[in-house]
Amino acid sequence: MAGSTFGTIFKITTWGESHGKGIGVVIDGCPSGVPLCEDDIQKYLNRRKPGQSDFSTPRKENDTVRIMSGVFEGKTTGTPISLVVMNETQRSSDYSEIASYYRPGHADYTFDMKYGFRDYRGGGRSSGRETIGRVAAGAVALKILSSLGITVTAYTKSIGEFEVNPDKFDLTQRDTNPLYMPDSDTASECAEYLNSLREKGDSAGGVCECIIKGLPAGIGEPVFEKLDANLSKALVSIGAVKAFEIGDGMDAAKLTGSQNNDPFRYSEGCVCKTTNHSGGTLGGISDGSDIIIRAAIKPTPSIFSEQNTVNKDNENISINIKGRHDPIIVPRAVVVVESMAALTILDMMLVNMSSNIENIKKVYC
Amino acid sequence: MAGSTFGTIFKITTWGESHGKGIGVVIDGCPSGVPLCEDDIQKYLNRRKPGQSDFSTPRKENDTVRIMSGVFEGKTTGTPISLVVMNETQRSSDYSEIASYYRPGHADYTFDMKYGFRDYRGGGRSSGRETIGRVAAGAVALKILSSLGITVTAYTKSIGEFEVNPDKFDLTQRDTNPLYMPDSDTASECAEYLNSLREKGDSAGGVCECIIKGLPAGIGEPVFEKLDANLSKALVSIGAVKAFEIGDGMDAAKLTGSQNNDPFRYSEGCVCKTTNHSGGTLGGISDGSDIIIRAAIKPTPSIFSEQNTVNKDNENISINIKGRHDPIIVPRAVVVVESMAALTILDMMLVNMSSNIENIKKVYC
Amino acid sequence: MAGSTFGTIFKITTWGESHGKGIGVVIDGCPSGVPLCEDDIQKYLNRRKPGQSDFSTPRKENDTVRIMSGVFEGKTTGTPISLVVMNETQRSSDYSEIASYYRPGHADYTFDMKYGFRDYRGGGRSSGRETIGRVAAGAVALKILSSLGITVTAYTKSIGEFEVNPDKFDLTQRDTNPLYMPDSDTASECAEYLNSLREKGDSAGGVCECIIKGLPAGIGEPVFEKLDANLSKALVSIGAVKAFEIGDGMDAAKLTGSQNNDPFRYSEGCVCKTTNHSGGTLGGISDGSDIIIRAAIKPTPSIFSEQNTVNKDNENISINIKGRHDPIIVPRAVVVVESMAALTILDMMLVNMSSNIENIKKVYC
Amino acid sequence: MAGSTFGTIFKITTWGESHGKGIGVVIDGCPSGVPLCEDDIQKYLNRRKPGQSDFSTPRKENDTVRIMSGVFEGKTTGTPISLVVMNETQRSSDYSEIASYYRPGHADYTFDMKYGFRDYRGGGRSSGRETIGRVAAGAVALKILSSLGITVTAYTKSIGEFEVNPDKFDLTQRDTNPLYMPDSDTASECAEYLNSLREKGDSAGGVCECIIKGLPAGIGEPVFEKLDANLSKALVSIGAVKAFEIGDGMDAAKLTGSQNNDPFRYSEGCVCKTTNHSGGTLGGISDGSDIIIRAAIKPTPSIFSEQNTVNKDNENISINIKGRHDPIIVPRAVVVVESMAALTILDMMLVNMSSNIENIKKVYC
Repeated sequence: MAGSTFGTIFKITTWGESHGKGIGVVIDGCPSGVPLCEDDIQKYLNRRKPGQSDFSTPRKENDTVRIMSGVFEGKTTGTPISLVVMNETQRSSDYSEIASYYRPGHADYTFDMKYGFRDYRGGGRSSGRETIGRVAAGAVALKILSSLGITVTAYTKSIGEFEVNPDKFDLTQRDTNPLYMPDSDTASECAEYLNSLREKGDSAGGVCECIIKGLPAGIGEPVFEKLDANLSKALVSIGAVKAFEIGDGMDAAKLTGSQNNDPFRYSEGCVCKTTNHSGGTLGGISDGSDIIIRAAIKPTPSIFSEQNTVNKDNENISINIKGRHDPIIVPRAVVVVESMAALTILDMMLVNMSSNIENIKKVYC
Repeated sequence: MAGSTFGTIFKITTWGESHGKGIGVVIDGCPSGVPLCEDDIQKYLNRRKPGQSDFSTPRKENDTVRIMSGVFEGKTTGTPISLVVMNETQRSSDYSEIASYYRPGHADYTFDMKYGFRDYRGGGRSSGRETIGRVAAGAVALKILSSLGITVTAYTKSIGEFEVNPDKFDLTQRDTNPLYMPDSDTASECAEYLNSLREKGDSAGGVCECIIKGLPAGIGEPVFEKLDANLSKALVSIGAVKAFEIGDGMDAAKLTGSQNNDPFRYSEGCVCKTTNHSGGTLGGISDGSDIIIRAAIKPTPSIFSEQNTVNKDNENISINIKGRHDPIIVPRAVVVVESMAALTILDMMLVNMSSNIENIKKVYC
Repeated sequence: MAGSTFGTIFKITTWGESHGKGIGVVIDGCPSGVPLCEDDIQKYLNRRKPGQSDFSTPRKENDTVRIMSGVFEGKTTGTPISLVVMNETQRSSDYSEIASYYRPGHADYTFDMKYGFRDYRGGGRSSGRETIGRVAAGAVALKILSSLGITVTAYTKSIGEFEVNPDKFDLTQRDTNPLYMPDSDTASECAEYLNSLREKGDSAGGVCECIIKGLPAGIGEPVFEKLDANLSKALVSIGAVKAFEIGDGMDAAKLTGSQNNDPFRYSEGCVCKTTNHSGGTLGGISDGSDIIIRAAIKPTPSIFSEQNTVNKDNENISINIKGRHDPIIVPRAVVVVESMAALTILDMMLVNMSSNIENIKKVYC
Repeated sequence: MAGSTFGTIFKITTWGESHGKGIGVVIDGCPSGVPLCEDDIQKYLNRRKPGQSDFSTPRKENDTVRIMSGVFEGKTTGTPISLVVMNETQRSSDYSEIASYYRPGHADYTFDMKYGFRDYRGGGRSSGRETIGRVAAGAVALKILSSLGITVTAYTKSIGEFEVNPDKFDLTQRDTNPLYMPDSDTASECAEYLNSLREKGDSAGGVCECIIKGLPAGIGEPVFEKLDANLSKALVSIGAVKAFEIGDGMDAAKLTGSQNNDPFRYSEGCVCKTTNHSGGTLGGISDGSDIIIRAAIKPTPSIFSEQNTVNKDNENISINIKGRHDPIIVPRAVVVVESMAALTILDMMLVNMSSNIENIKKVYC
């Protein structure tokens, strides 16, 4: 089926493989009149691209985006925006060996089972490079949200057992360390941990958290298109994500109702909650407080130690993966999480515009 | 927008409020030729209906389902199946008071913000009664899956801090205790805990786990319609669910690659994994091993102690909720989780049928 | 697949067979705050129901609609509106004979080929009674459109070779004759023609035309969701419709560009066209002039003369259909065409709300 | 909204403007294992490209397609297929004048009303060049259909008042004249007619007919996703199409039931109809006979004589359009009609695969 499309009104369709000619996305349903240039998008792609620190793969790729359609005289026209990043430095020969077996933790086996064969070069469509399309489209969504007073900010919350210290939480530190952690001290500990793992040829997992500020109350569509349900799908659709939480998440299961309920208070002209265990939704609809979501990301499956697996002739073998791989996925996933959250939030805001007859009259009467 | 539809091919649309005339679902896209009668559905609704134990609301409702269309001479015809449960014992007067204020932890405030007003009787559309439609449709999906050799089984994994002991895990015990726990000893501890909470007018949260056996490899559509992404949306769309996990879930973030990767082995004629940290998917596609998913469910927001909130005149007030409420949601949610998992799995199986040209030729050549 | 859902935002799902328990529709995505009662819907169903003239089947059915959900204190709540009409006077025995063979012009053969068997009673799902769901939902759409200053009016334009005389066109005459023709003289000629056909056991076809007034310019989404493309699908989805036209329709193919182009003029404060060959769209987007569309409707396939066909044992046989049937479909289809046009127009207006950033700011800033 | 996507399973998304960087399409949901190379696609694009005869615009464009993704080692992989045609010879200066006014018969005015402004160069997104994406995707659909024994063949049926003589109908003549008419004599008359119109600076309309052979019975989804309804939308979504017919089309409205019904007969091992007034569907489902559909195409709106219109300052003006334009659209639209028909037919075949439980078991059991 067609699984490469996301969204109902602000709808994106991504395409491309790790070692094909390029990677791209078509944004269909972008409103007209939004100022947009390639730099608006490139700055987000730069946060994702490899080779920027010791903790990402040393491959060098420029990931330069080109706007192919949908923008005229510096503004979106309302027609599809096609964004393309050409692949440049693929060394497909690195991957020829993996054509014959199934790497543990990768999608090699499942792609073969589904499609009968696979583009094995660099993981093909299941490569992390697929997220270029998400980030390019997310940049457009983030720009529109920003013009509506809404910000979406993600960061690394934990790596392995090391977690950001809430007392030292400082978002201004996020971009000062290569791990995108809002706490430089914990970031240093994590760097040490990652170095020790890398020496052993191993890799680490971690948690990415995302906060959305400024979202008005009322966004989300009961009962299946709830805001939290769509954010969950958005984040779990990112490769390597194994869990989604909103607000207190898994911990909410351990609380009692008297601990978990967020009281309402009226103050300074608006209704707000005095706590935010719920993470910004009630009944799947935004309640005007911050949306707080998290994604648990598994350790990079490409590790440099011997692993057992099966080859295409159904023989049990031992393998040693070669190539250039990130020792941790989380830091580069931060901008992907921001992008997916932004795409979800914006789409649901557009979808909500017709939820009551008063809004409809604002546009048509 | 239209948020009450779920699925692409096997598509369901639910309707109805807690205290309206009834609750129902239309299943559109059910294949023809499936034997189906009302009893097939009723047995699942009976697991959901209230009044069955000390730990669910003492309201009595029969929740009798009626097949209105789509079945002829005992078999599905391929046309829409309309299922209706009439509401019977609503005491709307119980709820007249809550019309004027916003209950903490409920969707009262967000519905008002979105729609301008709300059907306040018993929570209206945001009531747990909404899940009747999910369970009725899920029963049909479960019957079809069963005919294809696939089982979907959920249970209560934990309540508050009390968790099923893996050494005592016994699925045959699940239906012998009112908490639907596959471990009678832990169930007894939980019962005690719930009784103590109830005396205090408080409530508990918990975790529901679901295992899907027999699903063939290859189900799930990269990159946005991954199996895990859709299961995540399905479960988080259930009211009160605050987190989703697959396989090791949040814990995967703490592991290293060498711990988390599942080795493949060939044995007894098939490729299988020797561990299942991933929970049955790789790259968002089923890998032939068990699918293992979890939903964290918050404590019932209706508690019987004083709470702060705001009324519709923006006055800060204190309230005491009355009425009949479950001290915990989890046990009655078990069959809802099964239903949503089944609906997702079946729909993605149907969607996968055209994923390669060989399958298409099996049907048309 | 799920083929019983229509619309993107204002989405309807119909269900029910001719001789099942009932017929219904779920409207999902109706904006909140719209005053609605059963009478608003019943008056449209009454125009569709049988037994009202010599030219419709003498079956008597009340087709009484019941609102099951989505309306509270006289207004739509924004949640799904479930509408049900119970079947009353089905005489299934009339149809037992047709179980064994395929009626020419009916869907008996194709349903068997698709689904393996069929509910043969009265045509089952392929019966004209299916349109009850369309008309009930259309009534809601028409009410909303009316509050936005938009009217949708259909009528019988021709029956057989008899066509409304443009010089005598008078919409006030439409509801004064049983054929819903805006020209009583032609209606009389048609009545005579239909009587003569009925005596021979034969039936007639005709054309239904629909005019939409007040639709603002800008509605319709290039390139596949054009307004005319969606109107075309909407009308051709009605059973027995064999052609769709907008504006000059088939005749446009015979014109030259200088004949067919509609000049623009500015006058009395607005841009308008001095002719309307295009029928109200340009590039698939409404241009502010009247939308003019037509549907060609085939003669009733149930005729009372001997016909050749095949039975389920693949034997060539001759049959004589019995039962109660309309000698012409068009007059009862008029309200169905209005309904489908209204559903399309309203949905596309809601979809258009986010087409430019200015509209989005009207709602959110 | 997102209006540039077509299809449910075999889903295409087109992008690009007449004078932007390029035109493209992403095919998502193409089954894996289909042999595919650029030549398979190029041969269809060559039938559409301009400059091939006296009756198409003298602009020269190569319209060379490039496969950017989704094909590996000569076969489709099941992942999105991105096809791009770079624009080459746009002379945007030709169009600078039209920025200031609304061309009659074009989408200039409606795009401005919808989006606030427009890419006026060569019609932007509303240009006929948009159909490159349709034809490129259609080529892939046609290749798959062909492997299933299904052919889709369109041709010019009439131009102005000149119509193919049924007695001289000969499909082998279609590709021997520049008008794609299956009757060389009528083609000659039409050529003369077109030459006379061109001398006057005028243009002609016409009708394109399409025949689909080999489609199995059972394709099409009641009640809104009927095969004819989707074919109708597909064809009317092509710019300049003003009417759709299936089978006898508008003429069916003039027939009686005894004339219009197609009798069934069993012969040579299969059930077939002895006539085909219906055009290959019954109840919106294919009946195994040929599908016969038609699209009426209006005359080219760009004519070279004085026309009245309005400019952006709301002044009434007279204009004379310059540039390079086809005196008739129909011949170049023939391959577009084939493409849209093929995309619809293939998608509905994939959608139909799960219509009964027996088909499902063929794939999974």
